Amino acid sequence: MCQLLGMNCNVPTDICFSFKGFCERGGITDEHKDGWGIAFFEDKGCRSFLDPRPSATSAVSKLIKSYPIKSLNVISHIRKATLGGVTLENTHPFTRELWGEYWVFAHNGDLKEFHPSLEGHYQPVGSTDSEQAFCLILEQLKQRFTSKPSTEEITTELQVISDKIAKYGIFNFLLSNGKCMFAHCTTKLSYLIRQHPFSTAQLKDREIELDFSEVTNPGDRVAVIATEPLTTNESWSEFPKGKVLIFQEGDVKNLQP
Amino acid sequence: MCQLLGMNCNVPTDICFSFKGFCERGGITDEHKDGWGIAFFEDKGCRSFLDPRPSATSAVSKLIKSYPIKSLNVISHIRKATLGGVTLENTHPFTRELWGEYWVFAHNGDLKEFHPSLEGHYQPVGSTDSEQAFCLILEQLKQRFTSKPSTEEITTELQVISDKIAKYGIFNFLLSNGKCMFAHCTTKLSYLIRQHPFSTAQLKDREIELDFSEVTNPGDRVAVIATEPLTTNESWSEFPKGKVLIFQEGDVKNLQP
Repeated sequence: MCQLLGMNCNVPTDICFSFKGFCERGGITDEHKDGWGIAFFEDKGCRSFLDPRPSATSAVSKLIKSYPIKSLNVISHIRKATLGGVTLENTHPFTRELWGEYWVFAHNGDLKEFHPSLEGHYQPVGSTDSEQAFCLILEQLKQRFTSKPSTEEITTELQVISDKIAKYGIFNFLLSNGKCMFAHCTTKLSYLIRQHPFSTAQLKDREIELDFSEVTNPGDRVAVIATEPLTTNESWSEFPKGKVLIFQEGDVKNLQP
Repeated sequence: MCQLLGMNCNVPTDICFSFKGFCERGGITDEHKDGWGIAFFEDKGCRSFLDPRPSATSAVSKLIKSYPIKSLNVISHIRKATLGGVTLENTHPFTRELWGEYWVFAHNGDLKEFHPSLEGHYQPVGSTDSEQAFCLILEQLKQRFTSKPSTEEITTELQVISDKIAKYGIFNFLLSNGKCMFAHCTTKLSYLIRQHPFSTAQLKDREIELDFSEVTNPGDRVAVIATEPLTTNESWSEFPKGKVLIFQEGDVKNLQP
């Protein structure tokens, strides 16, 4: 299996603190050694750093831990390969363009016997079930809506597609277009809303703590999403199973009935 | 204007030497300070490092100069903005998927009054003429060939599309799918084939030299393509104007009549 990390904020924020703990799970505090990646949205632009080597020892992850890239939406993934070899093309997160926006996707789980027909706008490059699921999501969104619809309409359609794909296995994912973060959980995913009054957070995977009251303004709000909680002294909420949640401006919204 | 750097090899090679000279032009030996990017193919995978900050002083370019990523095809670009703001989404090279492969594109030049209708598979995210040209190229290739044709067929079609786009202005570009490198020049582009017997090369933009006979095997062959020659003591060839050239296995092929 793999692990997911996502961040959605109301002001551009760096992910250095969370990432320092998360990437330890790629070979030190956990076994996810088969590559890692992180994608940062900056306005309409998106940049990904991908590495098929373990995050705990990668030269690129060392840069990311120390280089504060401020972003409203970040998706990161550390991989323990199940389907698809340990190669760059199988490294999450994956990126494609839809409706003139970059969309980024990372998945935790296995989809068994999942071989969707993909001969339209989006074709997978690598051999993972995850990239196939991403291509199917975008294909169905693009076929359903020729231009970008409202977030509510996207969410409703995403719920329909996710319900179908989840029949094949474990389907925990993060998906963002840089404006908001969509998340879906079938087995394991937690989130935390960090907001005023800020306090000191203690990482679970490294002996590092940070007093957020010293580095934030009272109006700041950050949602952090992770396969397993990253801090020991904050209140993480488990995701409801089988529902697409939307994170916008650092807060969670469940538009589903 | 901008500057281009490309590399195509017959064995995976790092671009550290060439890049050390090239990225000095992003703010030190030249004026291309409006961002930079570099894309490396590793088998079917592709990873880009993009930065809207000057390459000469960027933390990410510092990593690239010292971190030897071995690749058969590399495209880099340093930008002096003309059309489109200095933002991440306007930073070259651009990447899209076509026929289940990643395609990477970078452009030097200005296309005036160039507003192609792009409502099919590929839409630009940023506001550059360059990304519009890239989307138009991929759109026409995908409409012309539903699955991947031969390199010869791609080249013939690319020549037709390039002739059309070049009517709008300066259209020097590098384009790669990880298998080979296509290049087109209307004003300024040079290339060099570095092969046995290897000798010492001296960078033009920094006081660095490298004896390639010490770091290569006799069968290695590398094509380096650049807007302006990167070394002072090697024999660079100017591109013919208006022709699509193909670089494969570190050698140049002109399949056009």
